[in-house]
Amino acid sequence: MTTTRAEPQPADFADVRTTNLAVVLRHLRAHGPSSRAAIAASTGLTKATVSSLTADLIDHRLLRESGPSGNRIGRPATVLALDGSAYASIGLQIFAGQVTALAVDYSGDQLLLWHRALSAKRPTSEIISLAQRAASRVRQQGRHVLGLTVALPNTFPRTGLREQVSGSLRQKDLVVSVAEHAALAAVAEQRHGGHAGADLAYVSGAAGLEAGLIIDGHLLRGGRLGRFKLGPAGTPTLEDQAGIEPLLRRALPDFDPEALADAGPAVEQVAIRARVGDTVTLAALKHTGGYLGQGLAVLTDLVGPEVIVLGDHFATLAPWLIPALNLSGPPVTASTLGLHAAALGGALSHLDQVDTGRIPRPVG
Amino acid sequence: MTTTRAEPQPADFADVRTTNLAVVLRHLRAHGPSSRAAIAASTGLTKATVSSLTADLIDHRLLRESGPSGNRIGRPATVLALDGSAYASIGLQIFAGQVTALAVDYSGDQLLLWHRALSAKRPTSEIISLAQRAASRVRQQGRHVLGLTVALPNTFPRTGLREQVSGSLRQKDLVVSVAEHAALAAVAEQRHGGHAGADLAYVSGAAGLEAGLIIDGHLLRGGRLGRFKLGPAGTPTLEDQAGIEPLLRRALPDFDPEALADAGPAVEQVAIRARVGDTVTLAALKHTGGYLGQGLAVLTDLVGPEVIVLGDHFATLAPWLIPALNLSGPPVTASTLGLHAAALGGALSHLDQVDTGRIPRPVG
Repeated sequence: MTTTRAEPQPADFADVRTTNLAVVLRHLRAHGPSSRAAIAASTGLTKATVSSLTADLIDHRLLRESGPSGNRIGRPATVLALDGSAYASIGLQIFAGQVTALAVDYSGDQLLLWHRALSAKRPTSEIISLAQRAASRVRQQGRHVLGLTVALPNTFPRTGLREQVSGSLRQKDLVVSVAEHAALAAVAEQRHGGHAGADLAYVSGAAGLEAGLIIDGHLLRGGRLGRFKLGPAGTPTLEDQAGIEPLLRRALPDFDPEALADAGPAVEQVAIRARVGDTVTLAALKHTGGYLGQGLAVLTDLVGPEVIVLGDHFATLAPWLIPALNLSGPPVTASTLGLHAAALGGALSHLDQVDTGRIPRPVG
Repeated sequence: MTTTRAEPQPADFADVRTTNLAVVLRHLRAHGPSSRAAIAASTGLTKATVSSLTADLIDHRLLRESGPSGNRIGRPATVLALDGSAYASIGLQIFAGQVTALAVDYSGDQLLLWHRALSAKRPTSEIISLAQRAASRVRQQGRHVLGLTVALPNTFPRTGLREQVSGSLRQKDLVVSVAEHAALAAVAEQRHGGHAGADLAYVSGAAGLEAGLIIDGHLLRGGRLGRFKLGPAGTPTLEDQAGIEPLLRRALPDFDPEALADAGPAVEQVAIRARVGDTVTLAALKHTGGYLGQGLAVLTDLVGPEVIVLGDHFATLAPWLIPALNLSGPPVTASTLGLHAAALGGALSHLDQVDTGRIPRPVG
């Protein structure tokens, strides 16, 4: 998912084949089921090469032959389609007082979505336990687990977590990674959120105020929007002005800070009050939106995204926040991915491995 | 220089050769003159392949055979070294009331550095005229001009400039581009400034307050540091607080705004006053440094550079600005590239074409 820039490696014929496997897979992902002749015509590969590549992909259970294609005179050509059944990957996230596990297969179909209440006492063992159970279930379904990513807010302690999760899963070629919540949500947004290929910023209120930034196809480190501060000593941070918790305190006179483990219901409460025109709530949303707009202007000046996506809690409140942003920059939209975007992004990020043509042997 | 992400292309044997040419070139750039056997041992290519590749590169005048290598028993091996003589590229910049042209050859040696006073009336024709003369001179030296980049401040009108420059140079395969001053200075800093491969931010006072950002090897669009503003309506921008012109107004009671076409002498004046402890000047530098530090903290939170380089006018004033930044982030250093870093970066950016192994025929 993140690109490392090592010394260039010499190319050989295995590289050529890997590249061409990737070309065939991406053609089918982009254009849907196609005949071998159509793949050859569109990619510039010879028919013989396409036959050999697709035989290999069928053997790996990444393609299957389906019915003949229409619009054809004479003998119908067999159509090849992506087959997601052999490979899967898993994303976990810690958000809203829960640990969530989500698995997708190679064709992007969701295999499972589990939520478990997270106790403050033993979060690491709960993450490990859910990771183990999700991996077992996916394997029972006859799928090879390519990877597992744990999405964490910046505030969550992560020392040794990757190694502990990896050790508990007992599968050598299963890649385990740990990454930022907002960054992984941005990955999901770019793949499944209707912004494929766009440079985007995903704004998350999951832990303070963070942004996931994908620029030129690269996920940037950083995105710590909430810590912005420009002014004399004692100036509040952007999170103080535009974060979800300060908004709840301003908007809900009876706000209970104990409820912050899962801010979701309180955020819904704000939306309900705003809908009926509660003036205190509307003023709080205007305050939040105004400062959020200033932060997003800074972000836009600095990295120039093509679209800004308000995620999770901010998506719920987007009808009131967007008009208050006062932003002369890229379009701002509300995410439609809901509250488990980071888990989805974590799972999706492992499927890139297959798309590059480096294909492990499937199980079974 | 900027990467475009098109559909993946099928690989063939020409690609393999291109990749391997690039591997040999980069090996020699990284490790200095080497024997064919050493190149083979280090890259994993066979000796026969290395012989064929290096013959091609010698034919293109990109390598030359030099004396035998030492430390060897028996017949001495011929050593191959990069030969920069066949290819060159040109960078132009508009800065400090001048148009500057700089040419480098493929080995990075500077071929020319010209400055011409820029009249406000006909800047475009002066750019074109200097571009033509620089290209002629480089060709007279028997070099093939790969490309020419014009570095411009954000404020400079650029409509049609690229096409006009390109048309005036009458060489089909000469790539002409126009890019941001700070971005190209960042490229120079990353290649020649002792920060090779680092994620860096180059801070320029050439036009307001801009940053060139290179993250994960990619040049980001944006970097418009000076427009940052967080606060109620009427809050000054970061450029108002930390730009070069406001600094000159604060630090020099007798500052003449007419002198702004070239702020260099006034910036030197500030440095002289600071050195003798002038309290007004030191207070102005502290004010500038304090706000600049806040802006750089925001930049660091958002994109996480590994090093921040104060460039051009900021480099001159770095001894007083750096202590005032109060930045708990990456190290901050002063650029040692002087005032033509953007022209250098513009020239260097075209040499990448050769490093990727896509090598045009040289002249002569």
